[in-house]
Amino acid sequence: MEKREMLYEGKAKRIYATENQEVVWVEYKDSLTAFNGEKKAEIAGKGVLNNRITSLLFLKLHEAGITSHFIKQISDTEQLVKRVSIIPLEVVVRNVVAGNLSKRLGLPEGQLLKQTLIEFYYKDDKLGDPLLTEDHIKELMLASEEEVRILKQKALDVNATLSSFFSEIGVCLIDFKLEFGKLADGEILLADEISPDTCRLWDVETEEKLDKDVFRRDLGNLVEAYEKIYSKLGGYKHV
Amino acid sequence: MEKREMLYEGKAKRIYATENQEVVWVEYKDSLTAFNGEKKAEIAGKGVLNNRITSLLFLKLHEAGITSHFIKQISDTEQLVKRVSIIPLEVVVRNVVAGNLSKRLGLPEGQLLKQTLIEFYYKDDKLGDPLLTEDHIKELMLASEEEVRILKQKALDVNATLSSFFSEIGVCLIDFKLEFGKLADGEILLADEISPDTCRLWDVETEEKLDKDVFRRDLGNLVEAYEKIYSKLGGYKHV
Repeated sequence: MEKREMLYEGKAKRIYATENQEVVWVEYKDSLTAFNGEKKAEIAGKGVLNNRITSLLFLKLHEAGITSHFIKQISDTEQLVKRVSIIPLEVVVRNVVAGNLSKRLGLPEGQLLKQTLIEFYYKDDKLGDPLLTEDHIKELMLASEEEVRILKQKALDVNATLSSFFSEIGVCLIDFKLEFGKLADGEILLADEISPDTCRLWDVETEEKLDKDVFRRDLGNLVEAYEKIYSKLGGYKHV
Repeated sequence: MEKREMLYEGKAKRIYATENQEVVWVEYKDSLTAFNGEKKAEIAGKGVLNNRITSLLFLKLHEAGITSHFIKQISDTEQLVKRVSIIPLEVVVRNVVAGNLSKRLGLPEGQLLKQTLIEFYYKDDKLGDPLLTEDHIKELMLASEEEVRILKQKALDVNATLSSFFSEIGVCLIDFKLEFGKLADGEILLADEISPDTCRLWDVETEEKLDKDVFRRDLGNLVEAYEKIYSKLGGYKHV
């Protein structure tokens, strides 16, 4: 496979075309941003870890029958994925209160939610990724009612698989953000990444935060936290 | 009926007990706040107009078969209403894009919505009245699923009646905020007020704003705008 022109540069990844119209080449960057870009950093080694963790988690999901855009990891910072058009929704799944949910609704961080909560945010940096209701999604024509139903079901399926998987390694999956894309035929596929940049992961025993909150809240060494996750996932066995 | 101790003082009204446990005495104030209390003013005459307009609109709704807490107007600034426990949700009904919907979703103000939009906000000043999804309402136990269904239906009924009523007098009902309360037996009743403080009302011909946006955006004389609404509603015939 050949890496061709850059199609898109996001905050944490670059996407390149390949000679195959249906495949794109993803490069994970060391850049990290938070609070809608207000806080920024370059953290050496982060791209490698997120590429490895995402690859590993997408494979786990494939094993559980949950398809995604992921094809394969091709280097420490690169992977090949199916080309999809991204649905401009951030699908957030929450098991435990944390972060902006806590601030927004005045609920204590760490409180178990009565029911897994799915929220949709409009992927729009200029607007600051606002929370959307399903009626907003319809008004903005971002997805049909049926597509919203599918997104919610897929998000719950991912949550069930990942929650039990993380639980086995002593990590609580607090919440996470998913993105989905559409293939040319309209099929909806899980896309983007699943990493400590996009999940909240707390060590069950120590309650240590092993995710991007280390950066958001200046809690210590981010790479060490991500390495702990990668290590718990069994990643270093494969190196 | 006798006015007894003050039960509650809100931003725009004071609520007093009466000798009847099931009835409270409402006094409309001249205070006006916007942007979650950041902008404040006392505007002489506003309380009178809102009391009169609310009384008139609740009567119109009663005629259309839509019940509310309203019993009767008893003075220029006062009315008697049934005692309810307020459900801590602001139910916002939107026909046309305006205000924070425009800012939040990047839609042009004045654009007709494809479908009447109902939004729920958490009545909580400390939190800044955040937008809620129906799942948030369930999590916070603010209302049951069935109650949310009833709130939406009642809000749509109020919209149908008020939209056609305002349309007859050359005013477009852009959006409005409702509050609901529960009687001791659990029955849900429309409550609070319906006035230019809680509605966006645009003159159909001149597009002049005849509502609280005059205050929010410093567009001119607020009392004159509210008087126009009261006059169009036929209010001055009764004086």
